[in-house]
Amino acid sequence: MNPAEKPTVAVIGLGIMGGPMAANLVAAGHDVVGYNRSRPAVDRLVEAGGRAADSAAEAVRGAGVVITMVPDSPDVEALALGEDGIYATAGRGTLHIDCSTIRPDVARRLAAAGAEHGVRVVDAPVSGGEAGAVEGTLSIMVGGEEADVEAARPYLDVVGSTVVHVGPAGAGQTVKAANQLIVAGNIQLVAEALVFLEAHGVDTESASAVLAGGLAGSAVLDRKAPGMRAREFAPGFRIDLHHKDLGIVTAAAREAGVAIPLGAHVAQLVGALRAQGHGGLDHSALLVLVEQLSGRAGTGD
Amino acid sequence: MNPAEKPTVAVIGLGIMGGPMAANLVAAGHDVVGYNRSRPAVDRLVEAGGRAADSAAEAVRGAGVVITMVPDSPDVEALALGEDGIYATAGRGTLHIDCSTIRPDVARRLAAAGAEHGVRVVDAPVSGGEAGAVEGTLSIMVGGEEADVEAARPYLDVVGSTVVHVGPAGAGQTVKAANQLIVAGNIQLVAEALVFLEAHGVDTESASAVLAGGLAGSAVLDRKAPGMRAREFAPGFRIDLHHKDLGIVTAAAREAGVAIPLGAHVAQLVGALRAQGHGGLDHSALLVLVEQLSGRAGTGD
Amino acid sequence: MNPAEKPTVAVIGLGIMGGPMAANLVAAGHDVVGYNRSRPAVDRLVEAGGRAADSAAEAVRGAGVVITMVPDSPDVEALALGEDGIYATAGRGTLHIDCSTIRPDVARRLAAAGAEHGVRVVDAPVSGGEAGAVEGTLSIMVGGEEADVEAARPYLDVVGSTVVHVGPAGAGQTVKAANQLIVAGNIQLVAEALVFLEAHGVDTESASAVLAGGLAGSAVLDRKAPGMRAREFAPGFRIDLHHKDLGIVTAAAREAGVAIPLGAHVAQLVGALRAQGHGGLDHSALLVLVEQLSGRAGTGD
Amino acid sequence: MNPAEKPTVAVIGLGIMGGPMAANLVAAGHDVVGYNRSRPAVDRLVEAGGRAADSAAEAVRGAGVVITMVPDSPDVEALALGEDGIYATAGRGTLHIDCSTIRPDVARRLAAAGAEHGVRVVDAPVSGGEAGAVEGTLSIMVGGEEADVEAARPYLDVVGSTVVHVGPAGAGQTVKAANQLIVAGNIQLVAEALVFLEAHGVDTESASAVLAGGLAGSAVLDRKAPGMRAREFAPGFRIDLHHKDLGIVTAAAREAGVAIPLGAHVAQLVGALRAQGHGGLDHSALLVLVEQLSGRAGTGD
Repeated sequence: MNPAEKPTVAVIGLGIMGGPMAANLVAAGHDVVGYNRSRPAVDRLVEAGGRAADSAAEAVRGAGVVITMVPDSPDVEALALGEDGIYATAGRGTLHIDCSTIRPDVARRLAAAGAEHGVRVVDAPVSGGEAGAVEGTLSIMVGGEEADVEAARPYLDVVGSTVVHVGPAGAGQTVKAANQLIVAGNIQLVAEALVFLEAHGVDTESASAVLAGGLAGSAVLDRKAPGMRAREFAPGFRIDLHHKDLGIVTAAAREAGVAIPLGAHVAQLVGALRAQGHGGLDHSALLVLVEQLSGRAGTGD
Repeated sequence: MNPAEKPTVAVIGLGIMGGPMAANLVAAGHDVVGYNRSRPAVDRLVEAGGRAADSAAEAVRGAGVVITMVPDSPDVEALALGEDGIYATAGRGTLHIDCSTIRPDVARRLAAAGAEHGVRVVDAPVSGGEAGAVEGTLSIMVGGEEADVEAARPYLDVVGSTVVHVGPAGAGQTVKAANQLIVAGNIQLVAEALVFLEAHGVDTESASAVLAGGLAGSAVLDRKAPGMRAREFAPGFRIDLHHKDLGIVTAAAREAGVAIPLGAHVAQLVGALRAQGHGGLDHSALLVLVEQLSGRAGTGD
Repeated sequence: MNPAEKPTVAVIGLGIMGGPMAANLVAAGHDVVGYNRSRPAVDRLVEAGGRAADSAAEAVRGAGVVITMVPDSPDVEALALGEDGIYATAGRGTLHIDCSTIRPDVARRLAAAGAEHGVRVVDAPVSGGEAGAVEGTLSIMVGGEEADVEAARPYLDVVGSTVVHVGPAGAGQTVKAANQLIVAGNIQLVAEALVFLEAHGVDTESASAVLAGGLAGSAVLDRKAPGMRAREFAPGFRIDLHHKDLGIVTAAAREAGVAIPLGAHVAQLVGALRAQGHGGLDHSALLVLVEQLSGRAGTGD
Repeated sequence: MNPAEKPTVAVIGLGIMGGPMAANLVAAGHDVVGYNRSRPAVDRLVEAGGRAADSAAEAVRGAGVVITMVPDSPDVEALALGEDGIYATAGRGTLHIDCSTIRPDVARRLAAAGAEHGVRVVDAPVSGGEAGAVEGTLSIMVGGEEADVEAARPYLDVVGSTVVHVGPAGAGQTVKAANQLIVAGNIQLVAEALVFLEAHGVDTESASAVLAGGLAGSAVLDRKAPGMRAREFAPGFRIDLHHKDLGIVTAAAREAGVAIPLGAHVAQLVGALRAQGHGGLDHSALLVLVEQLSGRAGTGD
């Protein structure tokens, strides 16, 4: 195969999500070079058949595609815009696919900054959790120029099963923000329903089965309710990260003058759970807060 | 066929839901006699092969199974408990299946009153809307004695595809209340997300597609978002009825000491939409309120 | 003194509020006969110069004015409407002043029932707490016929310093409901502000002083904030009772189609505090909930 | 008088608040030089006996005290930190009193930046509205070093009647944020109560009188309810500014991990009113939103 057609892919950020995504790219036949702040994650990539880099800049040099998967806006900004950053280091025509969940305005700023260096930038945040990353079944919401998104699609199709171009630069992040609004709210609603049912002595397993069959049915009910019923809150997706994301949602809604009464409400509840020291639990732990507010702490079966 | 094995089924309340349910029972080979306050609905049942009754009492006499499908708690109470009501009229051993959505405590009172007359009562509220009623694919949450629920199951299996026994008398209504809490909240969340996306200039059709593929996916997103995007709010399930149901939810949560912060919040929003004169619209019209609160009334495409 | 001018006053319900109110009527020269379910409260009235009755009916017989001060709607209904109740027992022309906080619709029903027996009824709920009852400085919101309210005024002026006729039967209770909405909300706002200030290391005593001087100033800030800062939550007005009152508010708002988003929200918080077992604390204990939601339980000075 | 004891006072920002504050300083015998972006405000100061400056820098040169009263954080930052800004222009030992309402973290940054230039900075946001500014009866919440606050006090005592040192740099802004939280919430509660009372046919003037006498009493009820009853919403304090301030509150609460459920809720409502185009109305126009949510738009007397 012609190397010009199959460029090296640099993956920066090899955590719970980025690690399996990189491994899937290796498995799909790509030449993958990875960098992560802590070394064990890099070692795992090497075991999976990838190559190691000792710095982000080293990973970027010679790569035609750079994928970043890091926690927050400042992390991406530092990686992309620094003196030794991606845009300063990468050759013209490099494609930067940022899969992190960050602020839409930062995504737009990155696209503009990339353009000045001849780097094509798409924002491509993902949904689907660790399982989706491992199985390559992520939902990916992509923002950017049509041609750049098409250039990114072969790589995104490896790591996700639903890849949708939703608009210009930043649009992917905007849709991801909407996603996080719905997910947090829906978890809270299911938590309220479960505690309500338990308090009334209803068996929540059979209740969940019938709820799932009607208009109340949802991915949250399918995937999260079993853990909630069992009070198993190992992440999964941490409250800390959902708290960060709801900060993005509320700021973006405020900026656009959009009322999100339930969104703002659940943001308070997620913030409360985090303030109580539960930031490391899965976001389905909103149930803990509902129990607490119902004087039923620790009453689950 | 032995009449003892295949008793006559009385259906009282032949509206948007009860009408198609009765027709499905006829189609399944049951002898169905129907009553409805307004005559045209009865005529439609006769056209479908059922028989007409001029009063609820007439329908009940000689029936082995009585199905009620009426709007609210007082309607069922009047039908069941009146001097000329179901429990006074029906023979001992009659099975009363109440498919209305009413207060759990009223359902429990009906079960007790029925027992005094030798009538076996199950509460069996449904979810799935007009389409589910027509197609016989309703989700049905059933409360009552095990033996009575089993006796009801052959009839419920005709009108629904998911029939779950969730607990003793009233439990069906409790689960239906939880259903209505989740549905209202989820519609509101999707409404907030759609207006948020529109305000940011994102194409909501492609955004909905990608949202549906991840943890934000839900029956509301699948079935309601298209109408919401098109601003088509013909019911479906009317705001008036969802307002009534949220009254049941908030009262039952209060009685049990359960905190339902998002539930109580969305109950206010549904109440506001109704107070504004939109009680006849589909519940997905919560989007109208979000637009109004965002200064974007009538901005949809 | 002419008995026609100075009738006997029966006071039923001699608790934290009713006890001092009865004592103030004695001190003002009235012939007061009191009844209370538990005897010690009656004994205290006798020590203050009043007379004891062994039943409500005994207290009512011969009284020209009957004042009731009991916890909830059913209590007043039982007292007034029972076979041996006030309206059956009292002579025609008797004036019933109900100072309890009950549902406006029950107050209207009592007025109608009284009228059938020739008993004139006014609803006269009070605000001002135990201190106001002891000092005779209650605020009293009075509903009823003009002439009846004027007849009640001399007695109300003894126990309160602000006595206002706000409308027909039930109007007093409606205004009291509005009062309880504002008070609960305002306590919650002050609680949020105090925890916010403490978390930022600001001295809340000096902050309260400057807040009190501007548009944030309120009776809650003046009377409740000191106890909140000191975490002293002895009632005062119990969460249990405020919870009951917010049930009245939300039901009356729902009935009238009025949106009370903050009212419904704080009703959830008061309900949560009660569900946690804090129903016996003063309503200013909403601060405890804010601390809990901020991960700062027990951090106050 | 020794000029060393009575330094020139520069006032930058001569709007609704800053204008009367400057005039009061002139009236108290101070040498006041003022600057404002639009000239008429400067002319009014000259008429009142002050002196005009053509730029902020010109006003600052030779002044011993600089008072700023501008809309938002970026305005103060531009004034203070620019190349030609206050800290670059002013002599060492100059006292900068910022009366604007800005973010506490910006106030802290300004204090640090001032210190580098030998400028002493106190944050001194005010409460009390236009009337308080005209009458010199503002409540002023002051943050900064003890000695600097004492140096500022003679000037603050001229423009305010309640001047309280609440803590170090930024503490004044933190208390102002708490003030704005309470005020917005309290206006909303009074709005809900008034619409609730109107919907029940209660006379709101007499109701307000009795509410004001009890625990529901507040400055909002005293000063704002009359205008709300009359639907007079000329500012006063504009929704636009309160929206900005609630952005400060919610961000500062989030930063500190403090739950402000009612605060976040009312922030949504204020944002909605603004999105509807009512940003120029007085903040008491929250009543308009409650009416709208109750289907009672324009029903006031």
